[in-house]
Amino acid sequence: MRHVTDEPNSEADVVVVGAGLAGLTATRELKEAGWSVRLLEARERVGGRLKGYSLGDGKAVDLGGEYYGDKSTMIAETARSVGVSGFDTYDQGERLTYLNGRRYGYTGLFPWRMGPAAIADLGQAVLKIERLARTVPPDGPWNAPNAERLDNQTFWSWMQHNLATGTARAFLTMVTEAAYCASPADLSLMHVLYYANASGGFRYLLEISGGIQRYRFDGGAHSIPQKLAAKLPDEVRLGAVVRRIEQRGDSVVASGPGFSVRARWAVVAVPITLAGRIAYEPALPGYRDQLTQRMPAGAAMKCLAVYDEPFWRSAGLSGQITSTDGPFRVAFDTSPADGSPGVMSAFVTGSAARKLTRLTQTERRTAVLDALARALGPRAGKPRDFVEQNWLDEEFTRGCYHGFAPPGLYTTYGQALRAPIGRIHWAGTETGVHQMGSMGGAVDSGRRVARELFARAAIERKDEPGGEAGEPGAPGGAADPVAGPVNHG
Amino acid sequence: MRHVTDEPNSEADVVVVGAGLAGLTATRELKEAGWSVRLLEARERVGGRLKGYSLGDGKAVDLGGEYYGDKSTMIAETARSVGVSGFDTYDQGERLTYLNGRRYGYTGLFPWRMGPAAIADLGQAVLKIERLARTVPPDGPWNAPNAERLDNQTFWSWMQHNLATGTARAFLTMVTEAAYCASPADLSLMHVLYYANASGGFRYLLEISGGIQRYRFDGGAHSIPQKLAAKLPDEVRLGAVVRRIEQRGDSVVASGPGFSVRARWAVVAVPITLAGRIAYEPALPGYRDQLTQRMPAGAAMKCLAVYDEPFWRSAGLSGQITSTDGPFRVAFDTSPADGSPGVMSAFVTGSAARKLTRLTQTERRTAVLDALARALGPRAGKPRDFVEQNWLDEEFTRGCYHGFAPPGLYTTYGQALRAPIGRIHWAGTETGVHQMGSMGGAVDSGRRVARELFARAAIERKDEPGGEAGEPGAPGGAADPVAGPVNHG
Repeated sequence: MRHVTDEPNSEADVVVVGAGLAGLTATRELKEAGWSVRLLEARERVGGRLKGYSLGDGKAVDLGGEYYGDKSTMIAETARSVGVSGFDTYDQGERLTYLNGRRYGYTGLFPWRMGPAAIADLGQAVLKIERLARTVPPDGPWNAPNAERLDNQTFWSWMQHNLATGTARAFLTMVTEAAYCASPADLSLMHVLYYANASGGFRYLLEISGGIQRYRFDGGAHSIPQKLAAKLPDEVRLGAVVRRIEQRGDSVVASGPGFSVRARWAVVAVPITLAGRIAYEPALPGYRDQLTQRMPAGAAMKCLAVYDEPFWRSAGLSGQITSTDGPFRVAFDTSPADGSPGVMSAFVTGSAARKLTRLTQTERRTAVLDALARALGPRAGKPRDFVEQNWLDEEFTRGCYHGFAPPGLYTTYGQALRAPIGRIHWAGTETGVHQMGSMGGAVDSGRRVARELFARAAIERKDEPGGEAGEPGAPGGAADPVAGPVNHG
Repeated sequence: MRHVTDEPNSEADVVVVGAGLAGLTATRELKEAGWSVRLLEARERVGGRLKGYSLGDGKAVDLGGEYYGDKSTMIAETARSVGVSGFDTYDQGERLTYLNGRRYGYTGLFPWRMGPAAIADLGQAVLKIERLARTVPPDGPWNAPNAERLDNQTFWSWMQHNLATGTARAFLTMVTEAAYCASPADLSLMHVLYYANASGGFRYLLEISGGIQRYRFDGGAHSIPQKLAAKLPDEVRLGAVVRRIEQRGDSVVASGPGFSVRARWAVVAVPITLAGRIAYEPALPGYRDQLTQRMPAGAAMKCLAVYDEPFWRSAGLSGQITSTDGPFRVAFDTSPADGSPGVMSAFVTGSAARKLTRLTQTERRTAVLDALARALGPRAGKPRDFVEQNWLDEEFTRGCYHGFAPPGLYTTYGQALRAPIGRIHWAGTETGVHQMGSMGGAVDSGRRVARELFARAAIERKDEPGGEAGEPGAPGGAADPVAGPVNHG
């Protein structure tokens, strides 16, 4: 990997903005088809929302995206292709939940001790969500039957009308904040259903064994983008903060402090809000711009506490702790595969993140460790290491796990998500179909933009005077990457 | 007024970003207290969401903000101070409405011919909204009783449960789109109530005589910022696109292509989304940044058709046309005070704007003129001039009339709206209390930031070694505007 200052001005067939999984996947696909690519990354690291933390001894844990399941076929395939394998998430022993201050130990998906009425209520609601979710097509949620009804209300409103008990409502609010990093009031009911269906189901989204949290990657999910980038040494340019994208005739120029890359096409593979913060020339059409104003990132921080060993396991605890009102909504045992050292990861999401992000770092640490100690015993309050990753503060991410839709968005601006603007194409997990919002969605979107560009190149070659359709996947002009007439609406 | 290139590098007590009413008001207040100010405006004109169009003969009409009422005391006061007077909006004769394709002529607020059930339904709903609105304090809507209930649902959901007839729902959807430039599904119920209460009431918001549309400004509302700017010839700098704001010790530097202004404090007086698109160093805290991701601008275009005379008046028509499904939600007679020439302004808002912005300019013109001709007769289809202002496409506005809150925003991020970040203070109509979202809100916010800075300057002087509290309003350091120790959390 090179730094952008090594070669501040360059030309390529395609310039890709953002070296997360989406940008890396697009770059790999294009390169394999013989195209020249520059992949510009603002930070001094690749991976975007996948980021690692070293535990020493060559071991590392994830400060960002981490889990996958049996239905996560695209990210599993990508991992295999770079030699990253997976292992089972630790899921033995008792789970703990704190519901409005009361503690329940349990196994299975729901804590049955919260009472038969609440359990029955929760059960029927999850079934309803599951059924509704299947009506929302991941390749176009706005095409769902009753799309307006699903998109015009918040998930909070739906819960008000479809849950009878306060306990079940509190539990569902908690798992929503853990899974979506947003409160039920923030979310369009359609987004809840869409993400659930694209992921493999609502219950699947919440489960460990039998769910999307079933596996973790050996060495961490962040090692996948690192290994992808290692195979793209000439393409990836670090430290390249793209501030401007200009379309001029049949070329596009992406530039930022100290660099400029000229290409035939651009792929913007950053979160929706951040795509809106780039200055475009000509300015983006209002319809696309309004989308970027309306799809915020969830609120998430991740706090890791490292211990000599996962001592809670011998006490018969799985390490899974959920809480309706504590400093985190869920915590998991995220120790390496061999169980050494012991690692607890607290997911500070939704309302918990909004609260904690306004505290000092010391206050946050104290709050998280106190809650871990309350659940796992006093040893949990004294880790050998503690690290926090505040995704809200990261200038080039600005929230996690993904950009969500408030009510009224998909049915009105959804069609702007993937529609190219001139020579600019859009990637990123929010534009994915398979597992939108997760790692798989990023891979899916990276493949899609590559296909879009292959198709455009073929059309452009046909349109050239005396031109013929070449091999699909062959770049437009090998000698001069920005040559050749263009004819697009 | 000068262009930023006249003096690309300068220093001042305060740098203000955005020469709309908010920035101009702040600049005026600060200047009157003896402070030095640079007011940086991206465009080659001042006024932001107030913009004029010349009709010849020294007459002009508004392409942006236009109306005010008896409760609009702050904008009226500002207008008086620069010698701009008002006149009554034309409001005689019959109004027309197209409800789901059917045409009704009427006088008063509601078309009584839509049927007694619908009228009664609408009446009780408006009363309920009015009562609820008064519970939402304009200086902190999150402090309303039942704040969560009001903020966690869309206005659409509220309408589903509080209106019995489809006709009344359609009518209320239409007036919501006309008044808020957003669909009921986009809007937090709390935002609907907050804007209504800050404006003077929900019914007041919809009315002409007796409402916020009662008056218009002679020469246009846009002449107010023009006259304010004319009195700030050394402060206003046009063509200054601020892309970066750096805080360094006790100073702040605002810069963009070709210029840099160093000051003690900065005031950012642009719409919330656009404030989020500036690059800050250090990066803004996540809590503030997430606000800027979540408060989009409404969707609005304004189309003006100019005729030799307002011929509809002699036909007994007021010129007010509302429509649930046409290319505009409302149109008004916006002829100059003397009625010459005749001008119709069509407000293409909410769902209408989303539809029209994706058509070609010719298609838009045809759609608007066809609808005007359908209502006012064939003469309306042949104006001597036609002009459209697409606020969605304007790079330095990106929507109108104001930034609105989706559900869950005010109760979670509302407190970030006015909270300064280090040496940066926030203005703009969305941060106003009096008439938030209208011209008055902009004036209110401009005055507030000036007061905030006067107070900080007084504190800093006290904190200086051997310092004393000076006159309120006196700048911190007269000789060197960026000198003096700073002591803020």
